Amino acid sequence: MLVGTLMSKTFAELLDASAQSVRGAIRANLYDGHTAGLGGPRLQANLAILPEQYALDFLRFCQRNPKPCPLVGVSDTGNPIMETLGNDIDIRTDVPAYYVYEHGTLTHTQTDLTDIWRDDFVSFALGCSFTFEHALLDAGFSLWHIENNTTVPMFETSIPTIPAGPFSGPMVVSMRAIPNDRIHEVIEISKMFPLAHGAPVHIGDPAAIGINTTDQPDWGDAAPVPDGTTAVFWACGVTPQAAIRTAKPPISITHKPGHMLITDIPDDAETPIFQTHHHPTGDNT
Amino acid sequence: MLVGTLMSKTFAELLDASAQSVRGAIRANLYDGHTAGLGGPRLQANLAILPEQYALDFLRFCQRNPKPCPLVGVSDTGNPIMETLGNDIDIRTDVPAYYVYEHGTLTHTQTDLTDIWRDDFVSFALGCSFTFEHALLDAGFSLWHIENNTTVPMFETSIPTIPAGPFSGPMVVSMRAIPNDRIHEVIEISKMFPLAHGAPVHIGDPAAIGINTTDQPDWGDAAPVPDGTTAVFWACGVTPQAAIRTAKPPISITHKPGHMLITDIPDDAETPIFQTHHHPTGDNT
Repeated sequence: MLVGTLMSKTFAELLDASAQSVRGAIRANLYDGHTAGLGGPRLQANLAILPEQYALDFLRFCQRNPKPCPLVGVSDTGNPIMETLGNDIDIRTDVPAYYVYEHGTLTHTQTDLTDIWRDDFVSFALGCSFTFEHALLDAGFSLWHIENNTTVPMFETSIPTIPAGPFSGPMVVSMRAIPNDRIHEVIEISKMFPLAHGAPVHIGDPAAIGINTTDQPDWGDAAPVPDGTTAVFWACGVTPQAAIRTAKPPISITHKPGHMLITDIPDDAETPIFQTHHHPTGDNT
Repeated sequence: MLVGTLMSKTFAELLDASAQSVRGAIRANLYDGHTAGLGGPRLQANLAILPEQYALDFLRFCQRNPKPCPLVGVSDTGNPIMETLGNDIDIRTDVPAYYVYEHGTLTHTQTDLTDIWRDDFVSFALGCSFTFEHALLDAGFSLWHIENNTTVPMFETSIPTIPAGPFSGPMVVSMRAIPNDRIHEVIEISKMFPLAHGAPVHIGDPAAIGINTTDQPDWGDAAPVPDGTTAVFWACGVTPQAAIRTAKPPISITHKPGHMLITDIPDDAETPIFQTHHHPTGDNT
């Protein structure tokens, strides 16, 4: 934490910076806060880093659970650069804060992975809800957690994921209160973003998916469900953290919730592949 | 080949059969023809089968090249059942015809893999263009290869894929002639199907993507580009066959072009995961 030092950057100072500039500030240890709203309309991503021996099963887990785990990037083994997600993205340094797990148990948070990087690490980037939230805001929805500068409430559910090797466990969801007469609209909008969890997985009664009370989220901050609104639940990129708890790899790393990887991919891109050369028209620029 | 035997089924006899019934006829060696139009509005898939030591890199190759290689299913190692794609899909027997490669070279075609199945095989299903063709037909487009009962023309291009481990090589595309005044419409329609190659990768001049003449496709049958139409090119699921030629695994298997895996996934499903239990409304049926 460098908050309070002369060199640190505040959230407000970074608000108009490009994705690459924000990553530069994070890499230089000048910012370790949350990334909601930073980097412009760029795809942001959840992160998981695992030893190669877990990589094939984790990829299978993502493919089988595309709503909580929409895979947008995967590194070569041992290569810390996420080649397909942007210009010079070093996964060891360019995320504001990391959770480190040993045998599936969170042991500590750190802001730089350089000292613990291994040649057998494979990094996985998974799409996140910021993308469809952006689209909802554009459509005139107000989202309580954004207006109140809190983190969206997230809950473990009774919905099982489809297992792959040692990876299994409950689906984690995020909750947003939506006006009753606009439910259909949020379904249609969020469905357009399959790389950002897509359409909701549940609408209405939280108890039906194993959530006893919406007042006590498992991650993030509580948010109200006012009269005239309905609790709507989307699959959440924290789900892999639950699966990692089950798989118990000797070491693994994720982003700290809310503290995402900011890519250079436009958040309305058809595919999450950083393009500098070929365009559909045949122009090579 | 059982064509001509008393027990064989004709294409016409299978036209109204369910996906599972068509797979049953294929499994029983009663049909080994192409699958276009069979099984109803179900997702059909390209197939690749590789030894496990190639699986991680092949998954990376698919993730990095989502337009030619939209991954819709991946098996557990050694398990011939594609659990997430439908009810009792045995990948050894349920595809009409397979290409077998040794060290990247096509050696022969067979209609059943039971005798060469290995405990280290991993099967990959990739989305195919039949899905968006169905949508184009519904929108009133006529597609020459369908009207003339031929296979769509496919070409190797000068567009490179993004490599992963030993997998690399040119993108393969399929070509359809589209009326000049409806190009925008086909872009919008096909873009809605990211698991079926999405929007075109090139429109217009074939030479710009390394195709010297459209009269001599590398796979499939030639089709005209009449006056008033434009050649439109989509990424094609034959691309992995070119990448396998480059990677030269000791053994690998694909479907024979046009002879696809018919899944039980509705072709307008949000995700390619066979659902019998949980629904977004919270109903568990």
